[in-house]
Amino acid sequence: MHRFVYPQTVEKWCVFEVTLKGPSDGNPFTDYRIKGTFCGKNETKAVEGFYDGDGIYKVRFMPSFEGKYIFTVEASFADKKYEGEFTVTPASKNNHGPVRVANTYHFAYEDGTPYYPVGTTCYVWTHQKLELQEQTLDTLKNSVFNKIRFCIFPKHYLYNLNEPLTYPYEGTPCDSSTLNEDNFMYSLELDGNNWDFKRFNPEHFQLIERRIKDLMDLGIEADLILWHPYDRWGFSRMSKEEDDLYLNYVIARFAAFRNVWWSLANEYDLLRNKTLQDWERFGSILCEKDPYNHLRSIHNCMSIYDFSRPWVTHCSVQRVDVYRTTEYVDQLRMRFRKPVIFDEIGYEGDIDQGWGNLTGQEVVRRFWEAACRGGYATHGETFVNPEKILWWSHGGMLRGESPERLKFLYKILCETPGQGLRPYRLSWDDVVAVPDTPWNTGEYYLIYYGFNRPSFRRFYFDDHTKFKVEIIDTWDMTITDAGIHSGKFTIQLPGKQYMAIRLKKVE
Amino acid sequence: MHRFVYPQTVEKWCVFEVTLKGPSDGNPFTDYRIKGTFCGKNETKAVEGFYDGDGIYKVRFMPSFEGKYIFTVEASFADKKYEGEFTVTPASKNNHGPVRVANTYHFAYEDGTPYYPVGTTCYVWTHQKLELQEQTLDTLKNSVFNKIRFCIFPKHYLYNLNEPLTYPYEGTPCDSSTLNEDNFMYSLELDGNNWDFKRFNPEHFQLIERRIKDLMDLGIEADLILWHPYDRWGFSRMSKEEDDLYLNYVIARFAAFRNVWWSLANEYDLLRNKTLQDWERFGSILCEKDPYNHLRSIHNCMSIYDFSRPWVTHCSVQRVDVYRTTEYVDQLRMRFRKPVIFDEIGYEGDIDQGWGNLTGQEVVRRFWEAACRGGYATHGETFVNPEKILWWSHGGMLRGESPERLKFLYKILCETPGQGLRPYRLSWDDVVAVPDTPWNTGEYYLIYYGFNRPSFRRFYFDDHTKFKVEIIDTWDMTITDAGIHSGKFTIQLPGKQYMAIRLKKVE
Repeated sequence: MHRFVYPQTVEKWCVFEVTLKGPSDGNPFTDYRIKGTFCGKNETKAVEGFYDGDGIYKVRFMPSFEGKYIFTVEASFADKKYEGEFTVTPASKNNHGPVRVANTYHFAYEDGTPYYPVGTTCYVWTHQKLELQEQTLDTLKNSVFNKIRFCIFPKHYLYNLNEPLTYPYEGTPCDSSTLNEDNFMYSLELDGNNWDFKRFNPEHFQLIERRIKDLMDLGIEADLILWHPYDRWGFSRMSKEEDDLYLNYVIARFAAFRNVWWSLANEYDLLRNKTLQDWERFGSILCEKDPYNHLRSIHNCMSIYDFSRPWVTHCSVQRVDVYRTTEYVDQLRMRFRKPVIFDEIGYEGDIDQGWGNLTGQEVVRRFWEAACRGGYATHGETFVNPEKILWWSHGGMLRGESPERLKFLYKILCETPGQGLRPYRLSWDDVVAVPDTPWNTGEYYLIYYGFNRPSFRRFYFDDHTKFKVEIIDTWDMTITDAGIHSGKFTIQLPGKQYMAIRLKKVE
Repeated sequence: MHRFVYPQTVEKWCVFEVTLKGPSDGNPFTDYRIKGTFCGKNETKAVEGFYDGDGIYKVRFMPSFEGKYIFTVEASFADKKYEGEFTVTPASKNNHGPVRVANTYHFAYEDGTPYYPVGTTCYVWTHQKLELQEQTLDTLKNSVFNKIRFCIFPKHYLYNLNEPLTYPYEGTPCDSSTLNEDNFMYSLELDGNNWDFKRFNPEHFQLIERRIKDLMDLGIEADLILWHPYDRWGFSRMSKEEDDLYLNYVIARFAAFRNVWWSLANEYDLLRNKTLQDWERFGSILCEKDPYNHLRSIHNCMSIYDFSRPWVTHCSVQRVDVYRTTEYVDQLRMRFRKPVIFDEIGYEGDIDQGWGNLTGQEVVRRFWEAACRGGYATHGETFVNPEKILWWSHGGMLRGESPERLKFLYKILCETPGQGLRPYRLSWDDVVAVPDTPWNTGEYYLIYYGFNRPSFRRFYFDDHTKFKVEIIDTWDMTITDAGIHSGKFTIQLPGKQYMAIRLKKVE
């Protein structure tokens, strides 16, 4: 019994972990299996465990209810069934559970608290040196971002030619010493990789799950990218069996973390060795194996995925038009009837690439367009700097002007009555949002003028309703009281870009 | 013979006018006909004349060749045929003839001089008081604009509630004293108009042709809008016969002015009483009756016209997307294989309407997008001011920041080798223009970065070609020499929006 270790209590929606000593001979990742069955008053869940190296096997479970649980653990290497019990304590103050789809187009934590995603992107921050990872966490702590997109596999791309801290598999990488920014695109043909795709490197995954836990503690969702095409090691070109082994391993390790989201791919359509059947199979495996139904989606390069597939919980979109980006949110809502997150809208920065040199104004505008059309957007940053540390891939510190304004937008979203916004047609050319109910109660309007700069706007709803009017400068982050109005009224505006008006019915 | 008057000489591509005294009884606009036949060594043209009031009948002719012409004039009210002769003198310095389509997607004057349209819009400037008209001409004189869009009929709309200087018909208008900016949209139902749609008011047309002549002297094309929906007088709701009478009258009066372009409509799809058959009929009449084949098009509100119709010489487009405008130029070129002019892209200004409160930067950006995709755009301006004189409708003076920058763009266009630009794919995300030949000679590239702000760009064409590189700041209107480069080279940029790079091959 000395090899069977588990805690006596665990907080609701936290990770309950059972550790078992077992064999380390052969290939423990494929030769042995371990699973647990967890049973409380309101739920019974069977979950698969995983091999964590050094003869250690683990089974993880996330309870969704308080109170007493009993459980059993079975391992293919052990004759006996292990049994135990533990108590689930109430969720602490900042623990609201996993994020779920709410109200068709929006999100809420499992305890009902609205969740308005304001995401950012640091593709391979967990593959950089530890000091930089700590700086990233520190930056995130002081930011508004409550979701971050990042990759499990390392990344090979412009500004991303270095080797990762660890590799996901046992083996050795190809020689990358001849690579530079001119020839890196040809690296798919590089020889010399020598990996055993049946043997994971537990250290690689331990580090990632430590970061998932760090993010959880900061109240940030970890939008995990499972595959991506920016690869010189061959991780994007494994066989079906190897892919499925990987996916099962990742689910067994990470699913018990409440803040995990599954993103099947970044730019799925650039992965030449994968077919639609592969993505669908991965979706099915997630549906079958993830006991907690974490959010699932897939991100595109040229053509968006068919988000109507039942395994997809929300639309994760990269803009496919250089000029119109989040302006498509309302169309995508209508088409898919799921929440829409523009997970890639171009980045604030000044690098040479067109997707990476937007102004802060343009990034913030795209966020507001998304919000007022009933969707969400995701941030990223790509500034040239002597250290060549770009937030978009490496994390580090933020240099741009948009993050502060996104904090301001988040505040406005939190002040929305009900659960999220939806687009509403008030006149032919305004971007107008109302609370996302099937009807318009006429009590709240958020009107965004984007790159236009009216010096006044006229309003008329009816003869009697009184509205408190506020003028919102989305860039300068001010909210100016413009008085109480009813009937026909005109609101003077400063003739600047990026203004909004908020109207609230007063009794 | 004392009633038969004409000059002895006329300049090539200028108006030769024959005047004949005739009856003023009955309705001279419909009861009598007058026509002329003009014959020189290289051309013979039969043209219709028109009644100009006070018993005066006129026949106008624009000769396209130098030398001796003979002509005859026949009138239905006269037994005898009038005969005469005159000499066509060479075109003077600033007279290049009418504008024609050249090179499929571009324009040139008839003498071969390239014409790069940089248009503006003053819908009803000729209907304002004369002092304001003079101011408009003065503004135009000092501007870059070489085309202006305006209406023959008066306009009723926001900021356009006043009565015109003159009316196109005999009669009296409805009472407009109760109209204001709240109720003006209901004015189509206003009663009290009392017009004789068979009797033109020559004074109205004389004023317009005086302005056409003024524009001609300034080297500006007059893009005449024949119908439009912004009407409280009923001019948009005449019968077929009345419409055709009007069109014939306009052709007889205006066609001999070399700078006339025909725009069948502004926002054709908002004219509820017109069908596609009507527009096609008007197109046919123009093809049949205009002896000089002036440029012909038609402008839309919600859906662009089928510009593939053979009578259409070029695409006259109003943007149908609030966000993407001239970015569609290349698609429209491909689709219609005709020149593309975005005649309405939104206006620089700060009025309440979304189409009328763009920044100068955005207007100029749209012009550059058009240019670098092988098309053209048209300016307009709508600033709130105490006098309520908005350039877009009334003319007057310009207040915006874009006109100076359009002058700069025009200079760049004039420096283009050959006849116009076409889009070229150099990398996936740049807007690149090369000279509009079927092949790319590799000698000239104009690359525009729009709202992006790269701080550098890398280039590689081949190992040997040398390029003179210039950095163009399209907003600050500077051209900076960045040296001679070949092979792989990097150009540093200031990380600002609205920059372009020009590459010219050097020997």
